[in-house]
Amino acid sequence: MRLAPSSGTLVAGLDVGGTKTLAVAVGPAGTIVGEVRRATRSGSGERVLTSTTDILAELAADVGVPLHGFAAVGVGIPGFIDVTSGTVRHAVNLGLGATPLPLADRLAERVLAPVHVDNDVNVAAVGAAAALGCHDLAYLSVGTGIAAGLLLGGRIRRGARGAAGEIGHLPVDPDGPMCDCGQRGCLEAVASGPALARRWPAGEGAASVAGALLDAAASGDPVAVKVRDAVAGHLADAVAMLAQTVDPDRVVLGGGVAEAGQALIDVVRAALVDRARRAPVLADLDLPARVSLVPAGVPVGALGAALAARRQTSRRLDAVGGRPLQVREAM
Amino acid sequence: MRLAPSSGTLVAGLDVGGTKTLAVAVGPAGTIVGEVRRATRSGSGERVLTSTTDILAELAADVGVPLHGFAAVGVGIPGFIDVTSGTVRHAVNLGLGATPLPLADRLAERVLAPVHVDNDVNVAAVGAAAALGCHDLAYLSVGTGIAAGLLLGGRIRRGARGAAGEIGHLPVDPDGPMCDCGQRGCLEAVASGPALARRWPAGEGAASVAGALLDAAASGDPVAVKVRDAVAGHLADAVAMLAQTVDPDRVVLGGGVAEAGQALIDVVRAALVDRARRAPVLADLDLPARVSLVPAGVPVGALGAALAARRQTSRRLDAVGGRPLQVREAM
Repeated sequence: MRLAPSSGTLVAGLDVGGTKTLAVAVGPAGTIVGEVRRATRSGSGERVLTSTTDILAELAADVGVPLHGFAAVGVGIPGFIDVTSGTVRHAVNLGLGATPLPLADRLAERVLAPVHVDNDVNVAAVGAAAALGCHDLAYLSVGTGIAAGLLLGGRIRRGARGAAGEIGHLPVDPDGPMCDCGQRGCLEAVASGPALARRWPAGEGAASVAGALLDAAASGDPVAVKVRDAVAGHLADAVAMLAQTVDPDRVVLGGGVAEAGQALIDVVRAALVDRARRAPVLADLDLPARVSLVPAGVPVGALGAALAARRQTSRRLDAVGGRPLQVREAM
Repeated sequence: MRLAPSSGTLVAGLDVGGTKTLAVAVGPAGTIVGEVRRATRSGSGERVLTSTTDILAELAADVGVPLHGFAAVGVGIPGFIDVTSGTVRHAVNLGLGATPLPLADRLAERVLAPVHVDNDVNVAAVGAAAALGCHDLAYLSVGTGIAAGLLLGGRIRRGARGAAGEIGHLPVDPDGPMCDCGQRGCLEAVASGPALARRWPAGEGAASVAGALLDAAASGDPVAVKVRDAVAGHLADAVAMLAQTVDPDRVVLGGGVAEAGQALIDVVRAALVDRARRAPVLADLDLPARVSLVPAGVPVGALGAALAARRQTSRRLDAVGGRPLQVREAM
């Protein structure tokens, strides 16, 4: 069932991943009124651009507006994003290298609306915040890579060099494997999806390696139990580290590994309870109660991209006294 | 030489430490116009209160105003601070336990001005920011304990539970000693002043154990070299961790250990250069250039306390249309 939107009140949000792109149309009250999911075409800037334009056209048709009928478009995408210029570099999973792809400008020419491009975990933090009614949280993405999107007091924290939340390459295990980044035992090298597959080869071919691992561990497989507890411990440490650095009100787990769902959050909470038992300083932080999964069924990335775009657009309209223009401002 | 202040334009800032208290009077342009340093009397709330009142009276006399002649008073103090109520708990070095000391209220009765109480590292971050002309930084205090004060985009980040910047109790060495907090190998257990003294007993009795250690290492003492490099590595990792979580524009080292000065920052920078050589992701962050010492001769804690108090007071005056009142607002 679709609400009947009036043209110009809808914003579109895209969550562009390495394999699939999810697009949502969001109404004035923040309600998702349309949703389209398609395979991402990648490998070059032109292909990524065509892919995003095509899915936006499908979304527009789905909600009954023309392609230029959105008030704004938000895009969450992995890689190094210059939010000010709306360009994307080093989106490895999309085949984008060092040459900046001016995604905001190029897409704006097609949709005739302001386009706001940001890192996928940053917009996911915005989406999770809207879904949970909480304006201070870390969205901890555990998938192919590991990174956190930080929404602090309602504002995305990007940091002086855009490195805020880049915890995947913090060394956490001196005896761990070498990471592609050149360091040993990075969080990403011991607790990401690929790390999990490497540590538990028995899960090969499963739709969700994390899910299969947790099932096997629950059945008592001793190797699975060992890997599960190690990964849960690393994720618990990551949650504690976020609490002892930025101390967000909530930590929300998302990404491919987190799709294992309740069984995953249960073992992460258990590891946090175990740590709190040993250290009063951690017990005070009440972390088991502050960590949760992304709300079921909410496409936080695409929703957050739409909401971030709407916010940027309103700001720009405020700033120039009502004349819409290209949205590129850093939040 | 003293500027001639006009009563009511001066704010006072106190940096209350376990052994000494430093008080400064700050003029409208942010210039320090008076400075008094005294031993802290501690052991009970009443003693701390008398100690701070007495030093304020001395400071007032020093700059030629009555005790109630300050427009506002700021206090930086270790422990758990409730900035809203202006109370202090668990200031272990001052002999304050679980019972909240209503320092802001009690001091305001004596100085007849708004009093703003905050954690010592938070106000030191404000002071360092003013001294460096940078509004986005982490003040990394390395002394009896280790903690960071975070000033992000000009605002103190306290966190949802007041734990932001509490990195001293992050485990960083699985083979390290047990920490008083119940965890093993916390940053504080391997790189604080007491940890340094424990790791290098030869420094016992030196005015600065860190300074003596660095001197001995520079002379080629193999044990000193080993301890120095381990501690420098831990501090470099702490800087990298701050960069990969909150990514402040600058990281400023302060506290007792940092008083070792240039020799300390040199070895921390060398450790950062070494890490950047191995990991391009770190090289991109340009950390050796972003880490520095507290500017020489600037009492960042007391200065920051004064500036934070002035800012809080202006906000309150704005908020109520000019009527001064007790300043307790969280920043």
